Amino acid sequence: MPLLLDSPLDMHLHLREQEMLRLVAPFSAAQFAGGVVMPNLVEPVDSLARLRAYRTAITAACDPVPFTPYMTLFFREYSREELLAARDAIIGLKLYPAGITTQSEAGVSDFDRIGATVALLEELDIPLLVHGETNGFVMDREHEFLATYQWLAETFPRLRIVMEHITTAEAVALLDRFDNLAATVTLHHLMITLDDVAGGLLQPDLFCKPIAKTPRDREALCAAVFQGHPRLLFGSDSAPHPRHKKECCGCAAGVFSAPVALPMLAQLFEEADCLERLQGFVSTNACAFYRIIPPPKTVELQRKPWRVPEQYGTVRPFLAGRELRWSMPDKQEQS
Amino acid sequence: MPLLLDSPLDMHLHLREQEMLRLVAPFSAAQFAGGVVMPNLVEPVDSLARLRAYRTAITAACDPVPFTPYMTLFFREYSREELLAARDAIIGLKLYPAGITTQSEAGVSDFDRIGATVALLEELDIPLLVHGETNGFVMDREHEFLATYQWLAETFPRLRIVMEHITTAEAVALLDRFDNLAATVTLHHLMITLDDVAGGLLQPDLFCKPIAKTPRDREALCAAVFQGHPRLLFGSDSAPHPRHKKECCGCAAGVFSAPVALPMLAQLFEEADCLERLQGFVSTNACAFYRIIPPPKTVELQRKPWRVPEQYGTVRPFLAGRELRWSMPDKQEQS
Repeated sequence: MPLLLDSPLDMHLHLREQEMLRLVAPFSAAQFAGGVVMPNLVEPVDSLARLRAYRTAITAACDPVPFTPYMTLFFREYSREELLAARDAIIGLKLYPAGITTQSEAGVSDFDRIGATVALLEELDIPLLVHGETNGFVMDREHEFLATYQWLAETFPRLRIVMEHITTAEAVALLDRFDNLAATVTLHHLMITLDDVAGGLLQPDLFCKPIAKTPRDREALCAAVFQGHPRLLFGSDSAPHPRHKKECCGCAAGVFSAPVALPMLAQLFEEADCLERLQGFVSTNACAFYRIIPPPKTVELQRKPWRVPEQYGTVRPFLAGRELRWSMPDKQEQS
Repeated sequence: MPLLLDSPLDMHLHLREQEMLRLVAPFSAAQFAGGVVMPNLVEPVDSLARLRAYRTAITAACDPVPFTPYMTLFFREYSREELLAARDAIIGLKLYPAGITTQSEAGVSDFDRIGATVALLEELDIPLLVHGETNGFVMDREHEFLATYQWLAETFPRLRIVMEHITTAEAVALLDRFDNLAATVTLHHLMITLDDVAGGLLQPDLFCKPIAKTPRDREALCAAVFQGHPRLLFGSDSAPHPRHKKECCGCAAGVFSAPVALPMLAQLFEEADCLERLQGFVSTNACAFYRIIPPPKTVELQRKPWRVPEQYGTVRPFLAGRELRWSMPDKQEQS
C-alpha cells in the first residue's frame, strides 16, 4: 500500500546556485511541496532584490514540478522599512553566528547588538531562524548556545524562534520550557553519531555542522520526534558539496540528503512503529508553528526497495549505495 | 646554540613493511637512537621467526644510520616456552583489543581469558604495552578502558604496563595511582583536539586513533609532560598512510609525525619554558621504566627554521607546510 503525504515540507534546505541549484532542486521538488531555503550563499541573500532573483532561479530549477521556496533573509541589522517591505516575501530571517559554518563570515559576532532588529521581528511577527552554535569546542557548541536561545525566548516572548538542526538532548529539553521555540531536526541527526563520522574510518560524507553528537543525544532526538512532539519540524539541512570538496585536505561540512529524505524518514518512522506521525513531522507541525498553508500537493511513496546511487552529478548523496525500503514512484529510479 | 639530545627514543612507532618501511624508517633513524616498533602489520608479528625477519628489514631500511628497533610481539596466548625464547628479542608484548584500530582484528576480544599469559609476562618480567580503548563511543573509549588498566595494575603488581598514546586527563591521573604504570604520549596529542580534526573543515590528516579529545584533556597531557612526569614517555605513534587512503571515502586513522617529531617537540618544550625536560621525555624516562640502555647516539637539533614538505613520497606528514623553528642538521633539508 502506498504512503500518501499531504504537502510535505523541508523546513531547512540549502539549494546553492547555478549548476548545483539545477542539479539538486529537482530532488526537493520531487518529494516536497515546499521548503525553507537558506540564505548563506557565497554572497548572502540579504536584500529583497537578491531574494527575488534567487526565488525565480529556484522555481526555474524545479520547473515543471511545483515547489514553493519559503525564502529567508540573511540576518543583519535591518530597518523597519526594509522588514515591512520584505515581510510578505519571506518566512523569516536566518541568523548565523559569525564564522560558524559554510558562508557564515557575515554573521553575527556580537549578540548584544542584535536587540533592535530582533525587536522589530517580534513586532512584525516575522520568525527568527537560528543556527545555534558558539565558537567553542565542537562537541559543546550547541549546548553553549542554549543560553542565547533562552535569552531570546525570554526577552522576546511573542517572537517565534526556530532552533535549527538541533543535535543534543539539552536542546530538546529547552523546547519544552518555551512555547515560542520550535526546532528543526535533520534526517542524518536521527541516524548518526560522532561514531559514524569518526569511530571507524573517517567518513567525510557524514561530516556536518553541527557535528553529530553522542548516542544519548541521538536517542533523545529520536524519542521526541517519534513521540510526535508538535514543535519538532523536519528540516533536512541537505547541503550538497561537489565530491572534491569532501575529499581533499579540509573537507567541507554538509550532508546531501535531499534525494533520500522522505523514503528514509518513512523507514525510520515505520521501524519506530509510528508511521502515522510522519505527516506531523514533515508538514503539520511546521504549518502550525509558521502559520503557513502550503499549496496542496500529495506525495506518494511506494513500498518498493531501491538502491541509493553512489553519485548524482558531482555530489555523493547521504546513504549512497544503501538499499531503502520506500521509494518515490518513478523519477528516482531513472537517476 | 644547537640542542643536543642523548639517545632519544620513540617509544611507539609504526614502520610498516616493504616500500613504505623504506620510505619512513630513515626519518626515525635520523632523529632517534631507537624506537619501539608496533607489531600490527597486515599479518601481525606474533612469532619469533617473523619478528626476526621484520627486525632485519627495519635495520636494512635504516642503513647506514644506526637505529635500534625495540621489537614487540602481537599479544595472543603464548606458552611459557615461547615467551622464554622471545624474551631477549623483545621489549614487550603489545595488546590490542579486537577491532579497535588499524590491523587489530586479531586482538583480544575477551579480557577474562588473558590472565594466564599476562601472569607469565609478570613472572618473566616482560612489559605489557596496551592500546587502551573499548569499542564504545569514540570520545569515551579511553576513559572506559581505564578500569581494565586498573585491573591489570592491581592484579599483576610486578608487571610493568604501558598505557599507549594516552589522550585524556583521567589517564594522566591514573598514572599516579600505580607505580607499575607508565604511558606514552604522542606529539600530536600534545598539539591538537577534536576541534582541529572536525571543528572547522574536516582534516583527515589529523584523524587518528585514539581520536584527539577536548581542550581540557590536551591541557592535562601538556601539564604533566612539561612538568616532567617521570613515567610519561614520548611515543610518536607515527603511522604513515598513502595519501589516497586518507582522502577517499573512509579515511584511515594515523598521523605521520616521524619527520617532525624532535624539531616540533623542541619547539613545544621551549614555548613551555622547559626545554631542559625534553631529554627526560624523549629518553631518560623510557630507559628507567623499561630498564634499557640504548646505544650511545647524540642527536643535534639546530635553531634554524625549515618548512615541513607537503608530501614525502606518497605520504603527507603531520604539520605539512608549516614552518618549524628547530631542524635536523642537514638530511631533512634535502627532502
